[in-house]
Amino acid sequence: MGMTMTQKILAAHAGLDHVEAGQLIEAQLDLVLGNDITSPVAIHEMDKMTVDTVFDKDKIALVMDHFIPNKDIKSAEHCKCVREFACRHDITNYFDVGQMGIEHALLPEKGLTVAGDVIIGADSHTCTYGALGAFSTGVGSTDMAAGMATGKAWFKVPSAIKFNIVGKPKKWVSGKDVILHIIGMIGVDGALYKSMEFVGEGIKNLSMDDRFTIANMAIEAGGKNGIFPVDDLAIEYMKEHSKRPFSAYEADEDAVYEAEYTIDLSTLEPTVAFPHLPENTKTISEIKEPVVVDQSVIGSCTNGRIDDLRVAAEILKGRKVKKGLRCIVIPATQAIYLQAMEEGLLKIFIEAGAVVSTPTCGPCLGGYMGILAAGERCISTTNRNFVGRMGHVDSEVYLASPAVAAASAVTGYICAPEELGL
Amino acid sequence: MGMTMTQKILAAHAGLDHVEAGQLIEAQLDLVLGNDITSPVAIHEMDKMTVDTVFDKDKIALVMDHFIPNKDIKSAEHCKCVREFACRHDITNYFDVGQMGIEHALLPEKGLTVAGDVIIGADSHTCTYGALGAFSTGVGSTDMAAGMATGKAWFKVPSAIKFNIVGKPKKWVSGKDVILHIIGMIGVDGALYKSMEFVGEGIKNLSMDDRFTIANMAIEAGGKNGIFPVDDLAIEYMKEHSKRPFSAYEADEDAVYEAEYTIDLSTLEPTVAFPHLPENTKTISEIKEPVVVDQSVIGSCTNGRIDDLRVAAEILKGRKVKKGLRCIVIPATQAIYLQAMEEGLLKIFIEAGAVVSTPTCGPCLGGYMGILAAGERCISTTNRNFVGRMGHVDSEVYLASPAVAAASAVTGYICAPEELGL
Repeated sequence: MGMTMTQKILAAHAGLDHVEAGQLIEAQLDLVLGNDITSPVAIHEMDKMTVDTVFDKDKIALVMDHFIPNKDIKSAEHCKCVREFACRHDITNYFDVGQMGIEHALLPEKGLTVAGDVIIGADSHTCTYGALGAFSTGVGSTDMAAGMATGKAWFKVPSAIKFNIVGKPKKWVSGKDVILHIIGMIGVDGALYKSMEFVGEGIKNLSMDDRFTIANMAIEAGGKNGIFPVDDLAIEYMKEHSKRPFSAYEADEDAVYEAEYTIDLSTLEPTVAFPHLPENTKTISEIKEPVVVDQSVIGSCTNGRIDDLRVAAEILKGRKVKKGLRCIVIPATQAIYLQAMEEGLLKIFIEAGAVVSTPTCGPCLGGYMGILAAGERCISTTNRNFVGRMGHVDSEVYLASPAVAAASAVTGYICAPEELGL
Repeated sequence: MGMTMTQKILAAHAGLDHVEAGQLIEAQLDLVLGNDITSPVAIHEMDKMTVDTVFDKDKIALVMDHFIPNKDIKSAEHCKCVREFACRHDITNYFDVGQMGIEHALLPEKGLTVAGDVIIGADSHTCTYGALGAFSTGVGSTDMAAGMATGKAWFKVPSAIKFNIVGKPKKWVSGKDVILHIIGMIGVDGALYKSMEFVGEGIKNLSMDDRFTIANMAIEAGGKNGIFPVDDLAIEYMKEHSKRPFSAYEADEDAVYEAEYTIDLSTLEPTVAFPHLPENTKTISEIKEPVVVDQSVIGSCTNGRIDDLRVAAEILKGRKVKKGLRCIVIPATQAIYLQAMEEGLLKIFIEAGAVVSTPTCGPCLGGYMGILAAGERCISTTNRNFVGRMGHVDSEVYLASPAVAAASAVTGYICAPEELGL
């Protein structure tokens, strides 16, 4: 019985010729990730262990990104804890204010994640690196602690769902629409503990940033991971960003999938997830009553990359953010911030009446930098719209692409760029 | 008995030919200011009054700046309260996310404060506008409420201290050093309820941004206000920023001052206020033991203006922020942000390893965007270094100029730019 791409990576890292769905294995880790929220818990757990060293100081990434620059005393104490741990263990990839960015945008950019890797991260959106053909998945802080100490983690080998991607998306349709469409189709538990394996000729029509967005939200369908084939575009990306060797795995011809879907990109429309679940999707044309919004957030590990900012700027250029609406743009890393500045995108945002934040997860998880009051609505390029996710329990988050978030910032209600004659 | 500049402005606004120190008067207001912290309290007070209109919708400025983009649900609710009030009363000068900036940088920039004005603001640093020759002072939220309702406020006419400014400052000595020197000299209650009147030929050697910084911190010496003569530079600034007519008042020859000091700018050195009072000043050369810092903040209503950013960039250009130190640059308004971007300053900051925040008061008052953990030290261009001001009660804030904050960000300890060979 053949193996899926995910299964092949796991087998190789477990030193086994073959694994199958449901099998418990112990795999070698190429990278263990934590952030300013989850690392302090992991560090506290490590303190309880008999080990007092990390397995490999080069294979741990500690990224301060959720609440920094420190939003309050508690977050300051958390960062201090991680900073001291990083210093004590001489962690190579410790990223603090100034070198930093949102973890899932930062690690690929820094070349720390490549095809064939097995990566765990104490953050649910660790699945992002599947865009490069890595197996990566979110874990709890105790697993992170064990990973830092031993360089290993146990996994139940996931079964898989195949998504056969065909066609070419229309203008203004991007990776976010693809993944929202999929989640709308299969539901937030549609891929529970399964790997979402994306294949097909349509993938060449998805930019790397599109793929990062899609893999990033695999968890929103309950997926253990999301993974893409290692094509020329992925190889080009890795060569540009990383010096690490990579391994391109391919699924066997006779790999087993629990389900198969075909996604024709050419048929997709700009898609919005209504409160309070990512599966509550409607295409823009299905929205019959205007949904007036108070805030538009363009950023996060899902959609704060340069392609995202370019699209938003294309729409906001020469236009004004609707009076009374707050538009908050958050480049995901310092490098993206700089690139966006050099391309004139930040100027466009400011002139349109948006604000540009320093990189942070910020509002996505109700951290800071755009929290909602009762009764307020936000159109957001982030990844979750659970009750109270961005603030008050009586606020609402609508998930969409940067194109939709930017267009909605201009009109004041949820719409596609076509509404602006684009 | 002659009147001081402040007394003349107050007399004119009280419809009196003459006032003297200690006299209680009621004065017409040209502007009533509130922010996202103080306005909700004032609005609540106004709700209790029998009036349900504001005295003049063009003469109220409501600036969302302390905790925005909303740092949490509470701040979101506060902003919402003010936003709704501004909408209900059609307040002309309501500034929200995207149009905004830190109030005391924003109002002069928007031309809302000119020479001869009487301005109250529910924020202690309202005294900033004295740089333009206005009488402006901080009040409580209930006074703000009464001001919004009636357009009047009562004052006890302040007595005055004269500061005779002579000479020209050395390179790297700026307005911040001048006011820290003065506060160090007279103490934090040295000008209690007095107007600090700056005069003398040396004023021509102080830029408008220097003067804003000096007037801004009058309150840190306990002053009721700080005020500068209306010279050509001030007139030029007002003509550039405002369409409002202004009135240049001059003190009478025989005006009475409780004390007079001469400040020779040429003798001043870069000056730092040690914890936990702005009066605990030392010149850089008086610091014998290295003071290692964890964070450098360049911004605030005191020092987030374009001159401040230019100086910081001059120092950070081609240099790197010390490893382990967080350097946070906060342009005070959207216009300053844009200007700094166009001049290439923001690029210099990012390349040096600093982060650039959207305009906010943020860390200055322990709001967010750089809060300190226990035991941490920050060199900061802000205005107060009280116990716990920027975070944990066991953290420390050292106040200094942008030049010192930038140089210290590079070395990791408090120093002047000369330390870098500049």
